[in-house]
Amino acid sequence: MCRWMAWFGQPLRIDELLFKTQHGIVDQSLHARMGAEPTNGDGFGVGWYGTGDGPTVYRSVSPAWSDDNLRELAGSIESPLYLAHLRAAIGSPVQQTNCHPFRHGEWLFVHNGYVGGFRKMRRALMFAIDSDLFADVQGSTDTEAIFYLAITLGLRDDPIGALELTVGLIEATAKRFGVPDAVQGTFGVSDGTSLWATRYATDGRPRSLYASEDVEAIQRLYPDDPRYQRFTPNDRVIVSEPVSDLPGVWNEIPEATAVTVRPGGVLEQRPFRPRVPASALAGEHNA
Amino acid sequence: MCRWMAWFGQPLRIDELLFKTQHGIVDQSLHARMGAEPTNGDGFGVGWYGTGDGPTVYRSVSPAWSDDNLRELAGSIESPLYLAHLRAAIGSPVQQTNCHPFRHGEWLFVHNGYVGGFRKMRRALMFAIDSDLFADVQGSTDTEAIFYLAITLGLRDDPIGALELTVGLIEATAKRFGVPDAVQGTFGVSDGTSLWATRYATDGRPRSLYASEDVEAIQRLYPDDPRYQRFTPNDRVIVSEPVSDLPGVWNEIPEATAVTVRPGGVLEQRPFRPRVPASALAGEHNA
Amino acid sequence: MCRWMAWFGQPLRIDELLFKTQHGIVDQSLHARMGAEPTNGDGFGVGWYGTGDGPTVYRSVSPAWSDDNLRELAGSIESPLYLAHLRAAIGSPVQQTNCHPFRHGEWLFVHNGYVGGFRKMRRALMFAIDSDLFADVQGSTDTEAIFYLAITLGLRDDPIGALELTVGLIEATAKRFGVPDAVQGTFGVSDGTSLWATRYATDGRPRSLYASEDVEAIQRLYPDDPRYQRFTPNDRVIVSEPVSDLPGVWNEIPEATAVTVRPGGVLEQRPFRPRVPASALAGEHNA
Amino acid sequence: MCRWMAWFGQPLRIDELLFKTQHGIVDQSLHARMGAEPTNGDGFGVGWYGTGDGPTVYRSVSPAWSDDNLRELAGSIESPLYLAHLRAAIGSPVQQTNCHPFRHGEWLFVHNGYVGGFRKMRRALMFAIDSDLFADVQGSTDTEAIFYLAITLGLRDDPIGALELTVGLIEATAKRFGVPDAVQGTFGVSDGTSLWATRYATDGRPRSLYASEDVEAIQRLYPDDPRYQRFTPNDRVIVSEPVSDLPGVWNEIPEATAVTVRPGGVLEQRPFRPRVPASALAGEHNA
Repeated sequence: MCRWMAWFGQPLRIDELLFKTQHGIVDQSLHARMGAEPTNGDGFGVGWYGTGDGPTVYRSVSPAWSDDNLRELAGSIESPLYLAHLRAAIGSPVQQTNCHPFRHGEWLFVHNGYVGGFRKMRRALMFAIDSDLFADVQGSTDTEAIFYLAITLGLRDDPIGALELTVGLIEATAKRFGVPDAVQGTFGVSDGTSLWATRYATDGRPRSLYASEDVEAIQRLYPDDPRYQRFTPNDRVIVSEPVSDLPGVWNEIPEATAVTVRPGGVLEQRPFRPRVPASALAGEHNA
Repeated sequence: MCRWMAWFGQPLRIDELLFKTQHGIVDQSLHARMGAEPTNGDGFGVGWYGTGDGPTVYRSVSPAWSDDNLRELAGSIESPLYLAHLRAAIGSPVQQTNCHPFRHGEWLFVHNGYVGGFRKMRRALMFAIDSDLFADVQGSTDTEAIFYLAITLGLRDDPIGALELTVGLIEATAKRFGVPDAVQGTFGVSDGTSLWATRYATDGRPRSLYASEDVEAIQRLYPDDPRYQRFTPNDRVIVSEPVSDLPGVWNEIPEATAVTVRPGGVLEQRPFRPRVPASALAGEHNA
Repeated sequence: MCRWMAWFGQPLRIDELLFKTQHGIVDQSLHARMGAEPTNGDGFGVGWYGTGDGPTVYRSVSPAWSDDNLRELAGSIESPLYLAHLRAAIGSPVQQTNCHPFRHGEWLFVHNGYVGGFRKMRRALMFAIDSDLFADVQGSTDTEAIFYLAITLGLRDDPIGALELTVGLIEATAKRFGVPDAVQGTFGVSDGTSLWATRYATDGRPRSLYASEDVEAIQRLYPDDPRYQRFTPNDRVIVSEPVSDLPGVWNEIPEATAVTVRPGGVLEQRPFRPRVPASALAGEHNA
Repeated sequence: MCRWMAWFGQPLRIDELLFKTQHGIVDQSLHARMGAEPTNGDGFGVGWYGTGDGPTVYRSVSPAWSDDNLRELAGSIESPLYLAHLRAAIGSPVQQTNCHPFRHGEWLFVHNGYVGGFRKMRRALMFAIDSDLFADVQGSTDTEAIFYLAITLGLRDDPIGALELTVGLIEATAKRFGVPDAVQGTFGVSDGTSLWATRYATDGRPRSLYASEDVEAIQRLYPDDPRYQRFTPNDRVIVSEPVSDLPGVWNEIPEATAVTVRPGGVLEQRPFRPRVPASALAGEHNA
């Protein structure tokens, strides 16, 4: 169980969402309300665009609440597009290479959830990763394997489509291994120009996911809140769990749904429908 | 808010109490029930006697729940007398030198609680430490200052008496600085031959503290529990919070009380009555 | 023995000096040539101005050569004024609060060298710090004590003068304690508008310190080196040890000398002459 | 480039060899003389038998020279058989799961050297690991892959034979990938009852490796050195680099050689001759 959030809009200092918001994500590191566990203390990461060539990633094995460097950086770095993630490890070691966001080239990737029976299927899934990408896998999480499978299956051309194929591949593999609940969770992806997020579970209810409402609607709801008056129609936030208690600000993203946030705050929504990749059907990935 | 526990009795593997007990102290690192906060994830430490010259201390800034080395060491080290502590930092940095147990020569020291207004009084309290000991203070916690004050005021001859003088000195200093609730908490101390613990608060209810009941009584209560049948009358456990839900096993140590555990499981109880040291009255520590 | 460097000029990406230069400071973390030790692996820090309110500091206990976050940040952060420091600990623990740069308000402070007999004098020096500043001291290094003494003695009004008083105070204290070589080293200080550096030793030869030559002179020397053609007359670098082997680029700062770098690359040089503060003479700091 | 050492004999406190010996292994972490690099600061580990069920492992990403816990543990733990390793990373991240010794059940494994072109061959080598063991690989080093290949190829029955097959497999794979110097280095292995070590390089001179001379011979050489008078004929030390300057104490293990140390200090020596496993020839590992 993890927590993540993404900002896309006007350049915003990172601490605005991480620290300054009521029930912000760093507060969630100690007191998550919607997760399976209230504590998300097994490391964290922030990835942002706009200050270097490609995204910059800061990851640490400290709990977010006690990392002085995070406070420093969040207070001085401003970005139009950033993702933050708090980790609650389930099995794999607490180490920097297991912290999200994962990065490949321009791409950042975060995940809240798990692959059921990952230990059993790890070899089969790792083997399905493009052989040229294999050596780039640095850690041992299910999430990083998912990320490299998605790249293998076309993430760079069609992020949602590639995630549908990836989930389909994992579900087919799980069937082969007799694993019941193959994929659980929400994913966040960006290449610095758009932001994609999905919410899905093979079985049962997926992890929660919310998008901020249209800013004009929020400003009408809270005309006296200076925080919301500063926001513009270009700004969107995607979060595992609402970062404030104000009603009307957050829209739950439905189950089995993907959203795309494009520049200008445009939010598109479509169903998320896993499909087994043809290559897997052909047994290519059965090793 | 922290959690601590101490074992004194037959040589026992450290993981017996840290990991194998229902609601053991590592479980408490994530789910403390009696503390001000459920999470105690700002480092931890274990100190034990019997395997080296004097006590050995293992301290880490990782949360106890994710520290692989702790599992390794706890599973292989056996000691007749050990203290374990989980830290929930309140202000001072998460660093090894701020983790308990603190050690000086043969002595180990743990604390659950705080000095009110420590920031204000830090200089005055540090100045009251014996000048020969001053440079041994390595970290920045109130606890370490208390420990060195207690050594200054006679801990090595009379641990409870020295802690009464230390608390008296802090209370007198607090009065001078206009600080209301000077001292809160429980202390655990050992020199490897006995174990001392106190429970006290200047104002209000002090942090919880429990001693295990007489083992024979426990065995009569739970004749079928193999864990308790292995214990002997020599064995005593002192804990911030009970490590199992079995009724009858734990006696709450009353407020303003000190206990001494001597070899053979002998538990002595006396009132804990802070007194201002004569030197402080004479203004020697007013710098 | 440590290594440090400071950049003041046009906004420059931090990795330009830390990583991309021949024998740059991160290379010096493994292979310092002029220090007492070739390895500076006991943590590091970078402090920079211009991206937040006041300076931002990133400090870590990892060796600089293996810290992925440093590579990430250095590759994406650009600043007109930054200081970097590599630590080689001599006695005090490897912890973030002992890593340079130290910060107080707008001020950053780095040091290469030591206070002789610091353990002996620590209490006396700590109690000479302004009582309102005492609780801000977070670590246990001699450098942090020097920094807070300098603030106590007027750093914010006259940095070089305050350092002369601080060194004078330490030398007077050392005399009292029978310590021979009181102060050794180079200091770097900034408030974000200017940069000050000193080179001094009570006894013997002080640690090395260099300033980059006038850029126009450098460009005449190396007309074909694109790196130097990009530099402007506004740019100055101060370093413990030259970061390239090119002759003519670096001027050694003489012993017992202080330099001030002002905006526009203006470099002023004056003698550094420790003086005992009047307050110390009056015995106020003799506690 | 790493450093390692192993002790097998009478129960000996770990610090005797790690800290108390002239040019001991912790000193080698800063000043190795025979390695490719003088600094081995990318983490370390110690594994020992005799205090728990199976071996206990303490690993840390700190440099060995600054890890307080290592000093504590080494000063209090006594073992008849232990291995210590200092890491100098070449490419893979500095994280606990990349620190040696690696453990599987009763087995400990250390390595000084590298697999040439590991990045290229990583996938092929990983898929040659027994599929039931695949998920146990936690880190990303060449060494851990070698260890699990060796287990796959019979380490538990014939450690030297399995290492010959493993090196043969890697050399065959390297040929396939056009990698010239496949395997370089020394390995140390134990199951708690014996100790095995090998020295080999596909091309050129392998890393250095030494075994302590017969103790009686040493005692005759240095009749007045109390350290050697305490040793018994049961005691053997295997080291990457001699831990003292005394001539006559250390025998270089020849190139392409394996040694077995059995209880009682018996040292057997045989050639180390890589062989390609039949399964690899049959193309089973060509995936």
